[in-house]
Amino acid sequence: MKKKKIVTIGGGTGSFMLLAGLKKYQVDLSAIVSMADDGGSTGVLRDELGVLPPGDVRQCLVALSDSSEALRGLLSYRFEDGGLKGHSFGNLFLSALEKINGSFEVGIEEAIKILNVRGKIIPVTNDDARLFLKLKNGDILKGEDNINRSVIIRKEGLDKLYFEPAVAASQKAIQHILEADLILIGPGGFYTSVLPNLLAAGISKAIKDSKATVIYNCNLTNKNGQTDGFSLDDYAKEINARIGAERLDFVTYNSKKPDRKLIEKYQNSQQQLVEFDPEEIKDRSYKVIRADILSDEIAEYSSADVVASTRALIRHDSNKLAKIIFLLSEIEDYKSIIKDII
Amino acid sequence: MKKKKIVTIGGGTGSFMLLAGLKKYQVDLSAIVSMADDGGSTGVLRDELGVLPPGDVRQCLVALSDSSEALRGLLSYRFEDGGLKGHSFGNLFLSALEKINGSFEVGIEEAIKILNVRGKIIPVTNDDARLFLKLKNGDILKGEDNINRSVIIRKEGLDKLYFEPAVAASQKAIQHILEADLILIGPGGFYTSVLPNLLAAGISKAIKDSKATVIYNCNLTNKNGQTDGFSLDDYAKEINARIGAERLDFVTYNSKKPDRKLIEKYQNSQQQLVEFDPEEIKDRSYKVIRADILSDEIAEYSSADVVASTRALIRHDSNKLAKIIFLLSEIEDYKSIIKDII
Repeated sequence: MKKKKIVTIGGGTGSFMLLAGLKKYQVDLSAIVSMADDGGSTGVLRDELGVLPPGDVRQCLVALSDSSEALRGLLSYRFEDGGLKGHSFGNLFLSALEKINGSFEVGIEEAIKILNVRGKIIPVTNDDARLFLKLKNGDILKGEDNINRSVIIRKEGLDKLYFEPAVAASQKAIQHILEADLILIGPGGFYTSVLPNLLAAGISKAIKDSKATVIYNCNLTNKNGQTDGFSLDDYAKEINARIGAERLDFVTYNSKKPDRKLIEKYQNSQQQLVEFDPEEIKDRSYKVIRADILSDEIAEYSSADVVASTRALIRHDSNKLAKIIFLLSEIEDYKSIIKDII
Repeated sequence: MKKKKIVTIGGGTGSFMLLAGLKKYQVDLSAIVSMADDGGSTGVLRDELGVLPPGDVRQCLVALSDSSEALRGLLSYRFEDGGLKGHSFGNLFLSALEKINGSFEVGIEEAIKILNVRGKIIPVTNDDARLFLKLKNGDILKGEDNINRSVIIRKEGLDKLYFEPAVAASQKAIQHILEADLILIGPGGFYTSVLPNLLAAGISKAIKDSKATVIYNCNLTNKNGQTDGFSLDDYAKEINARIGAERLDFVTYNSKKPDRKLIEKYQNSQQQLVEFDPEEIKDRSYKVIRADILSDEIAEYSSADVVASTRALIRHDSNKLAKIIFLLSEIEDYKSIIKDII
């Protein structure tokens, strides 16, 4: 049987979760990765070394690497003191490889060889991508990191999310989308990771033109000050609008209620579960897969990791979600054989 | 045939040269490495992260690694801009491994696994080694880097070279010396790399007690302001004095005259060839091996590498020296079999 070609489109944390689960299956994985990050260690490296942002790529490398636990731990290690404080070792690794090879894309290829990675990691663009968000009041949030930290987007209203200057999708990313059997969009920061991928010129059209089954992994929680009150359908509608077609085939939704401990924790954190009401819309252009895809673990973040503390406490379970996705890819085969039943 | 156990005692650059040549032979290599370095990238990491000095160990790792050219290039790569400027990627690699594993020794063991290194790399001490040099005028040069840059040691006269506080040799280093078939001392900075190894308490006694053949690879040039006018015998005498016995069996000496181009270059650099006069001493306690061990390449250093620019232009040829050493180890076997002839 030919391995299914699965392409993930997202950022670091969401893609890490997806890839870590999917790599246990006999599938052909390619991760298309957002290149908008400009905060923390990544931001400093962009500014000081003039490299492309390594942070999201690093997380995908760690997820897909078959190397020892020790080596993967090393890539995720953050220095805690002096001039190196906050730098992730894996970011320095990717930036050094970019400098040596004169290209981020070639640097990633070298990293993939060194780390014995199964799968491909493809930056969505090779351009220096600078993200901006214009609010309806005319104010502009400059940079992914500022957008990520903003709590006024929902209140002021989003006018426009854009790269300045505009960025072109990498040919490699477009090609992999066109040849995919399955395209997975999200989860991840909606304005900072998921949508920015669709803004790289050429990506949306490629998704539209592709014959792949398209699955959107909706976030489990809304982001405070950004997507408060969004329902699953709101997210899906926005994704389809960016693609320019009703292209989503499936949207995954968590049906498992978090346990009490988790609920107490997230209620203090101003996070809100994404809601889904089957009756709200009559004829959706996508099917909603309701399943238990919730992680039982309670996320603990080091207080030193500034970005992590803005992340969700309620998270996907990597293995549960991968299983659903793998089953969906099998169902699609089934559909193509016995068309009349479905 | 059992592999010969060869132990090198030195620092980064000299040991790199030796190991790169010796690893082509079927021998069991262990590099005992000076831990006095406190300059450049290494110095910053010691101060800011509180780690042990990675620089010399890194060079031995690169020399002994069977990994790809790309990976070895990566370890030697130096960042050129921003807060990372001057840091060698390999130093960051070793410092991160030390931090993760809580021990420099264990960190090196991890590095050896990751990099597919054939051989062992053993810090001469696990203590935080701070080197001092007291001049006869009472002044004290603080730290390896300052000693390395000094041009007044010869003029003012050396009173004492010491660690403050005193450092103990690692048990692993002592054990490897005691079990060695061949011990190679040098080449390398005399006051900054070769002698500091012998100052770690326990090393000199282990060399004295060992049954190994001891070879001293004398430097090819004197260091301006430090060892001006030293002959091969002066160096050898000093080494024996530190060991506390006439322990050297062989001293290697280059008999090949550098070609005109090289001579022109080094004459401008105030470097002076080490001289050897067979007639000067009647009965040496060591044999002097005169051979062509000169590198034909002219060393080119980046002007950004401050330390390198103080290094010798006239250098050993890695392959030529390794061949001599391997032959010497064979001669020793020969001696033990037919004792009567020698």
